Amino acid sequence: MSVLSRGDRVALVSPAGPALAPVLAEGVAVLRSWGLTVTTPVVQPWSLPYLAGSDAGRAAEFVDAWCSDVAAVFCVRGGYGCLRMTDLVPWEELPPRVFVGSSDVTVLHAELNAAGQPTVFGPMPGTRDFVADPLAQQRLRRFLFEGMSSWTAGTPVVPGTARGVLVGGNVALLAAAVGGPRWSVPAAGAIALLEDVGEEAYRLDRLLTQLLRAGWFAPVSGIVLGSWTGCGDVSAVLADRLGPLGVPVLGEFGFGHCPGQWTLPLGVEAVLDASAGTLTLV
Amino acid sequence: MSVLSRGDRVALVSPAGPALAPVLAEGVAVLRSWGLTVTTPVVQPWSLPYLAGSDAGRAAEFVDAWCSDVAAVFCVRGGYGCLRMTDLVPWEELPPRVFVGSSDVTVLHAELNAAGQPTVFGPMPGTRDFVADPLAQQRLRRFLFEGMSSWTAGTPVVPGTARGVLVGGNVALLAAAVGGPRWSVPAAGAIALLEDVGEEAYRLDRLLTQLLRAGWFAPVSGIVLGSWTGCGDVSAVLADRLGPLGVPVLGEFGFGHCPGQWTLPLGVEAVLDASAGTLTLV
Repeated sequence: MSVLSRGDRVALVSPAGPALAPVLAEGVAVLRSWGLTVTTPVVQPWSLPYLAGSDAGRAAEFVDAWCSDVAAVFCVRGGYGCLRMTDLVPWEELPPRVFVGSSDVTVLHAELNAAGQPTVFGPMPGTRDFVADPLAQQRLRRFLFEGMSSWTAGTPVVPGTARGVLVGGNVALLAAAVGGPRWSVPAAGAIALLEDVGEEAYRLDRLLTQLLRAGWFAPVSGIVLGSWTGCGDVSAVLADRLGPLGVPVLGEFGFGHCPGQWTLPLGVEAVLDASAGTLTLV
Repeated sequence: MSVLSRGDRVALVSPAGPALAPVLAEGVAVLRSWGLTVTTPVVQPWSLPYLAGSDAGRAAEFVDAWCSDVAAVFCVRGGYGCLRMTDLVPWEELPPRVFVGSSDVTVLHAELNAAGQPTVFGPMPGTRDFVADPLAQQRLRRFLFEGMSSWTAGTPVVPGTARGVLVGGNVALLAAAVGGPRWSVPAAGAIALLEDVGEEAYRLDRLLTQLLRAGWFAPVSGIVLGSWTGCGDVSAVLADRLGPLGVPVLGEFGFGHCPGQWTLPLGVEAVLDASAGTLTLV
């Protein structure tokens, strides 16, 4: 997996919601303190206030940033919107880049991974989860600049080991992508990272049930659970929906919408040992 | 479309969430006051409290009720759960029945309509929206016992006329069904009824975007909008997502989660005149 060095140029993009200017300014200052040269996005006001701009505008910003002379593209925040612009991006034609984002950006990870690009699921510089969380910053920085390849965290839920490509992200967006033009189930043996925020148990049930009925979990050989902030107690629904799959599950791994979130790669092969609580890149 | 008569036997079922006993008792009393003989469901406590019983148990109750000597099957309430039990029902083998339900039950309407059975989208006897709303009761009773075939209501949004089979219901459930084993887009020319409750604008955008990307709207020739209770102001997102379809749209028609909700059929052919604010069965 590519990593960054001091002096690298990186572009920030807004494929989903608009970042608050003062939050983004703090986030950019952090990235600059790491020695990165940062290009920030120009948000254009739009009639739907939860979007950072028109679909065409956000897609053009994304493609222009990606194809410019940068080592990496960072999403400023999630919210909602990637599902609306993803069909406007020529995924197969994009050159290799380091890509950082999470939450709503789950949609773009799946597109990039399908096009053969590994990606980085981590905190975003235009969010409070980044600027107010030094540990999450440190973990992103360590992943990008030092290239972490193993993690020990979490609580065993179903013991066992699995090996496969890391896929997944935010469950609501994994479900919302079902039926789209390029949608497909994961590769055989995939290890699914799953997290969400603000989805009550019955809603999480509905999302997982949609993925189950669509066959998304059929090739999955192992599961790593992240945070379920604002979802209430979801242990029963996770056990009910994921238990029958009969694959190793490692819980409370600490990625997604939680303090000190880990930065993890997607689209790369890894070994999960749910008994030992380790995830190791191959 | 079949209608009911005094003395008919009807069965109540719980394919989704459990009804509160005192609410259901009130609803059953209303149905009995219409001269119906009512069989009530036996709710079995279940580990997930938002479900009225196990998936197998709810499916068996549904099939047993449907295949018993009844003229109609009424769902006691929605909530969530139909998506979990629908794959356990032999849809093509069910004899003709009048079927009443809405909200989460949208999933079962689509299955029955696909199997050639028209259905009734209306208020459910185990909900406050039924027992505390005499006008909604009156409209359900009138539809079932007198066989309404035309409605004048709503506000023109996009003028024009359309003719086709009535499809749709609750948008969240239409989206959640995408990718399921028997999922398909509506028949050519279909008129879509759309409503939801408690989905903020960005969530409604995500649901509609999933349906758009999956091709669900491609055959639709007209749209009738119901209630958007607890969704905030969704006029902009509805215009943004549905306007480009270029089909007639009639808004604020008054079905779904609103006072005095209309009872409307699904799976039957109708003519929509969005300019005149009329919906007429063929």
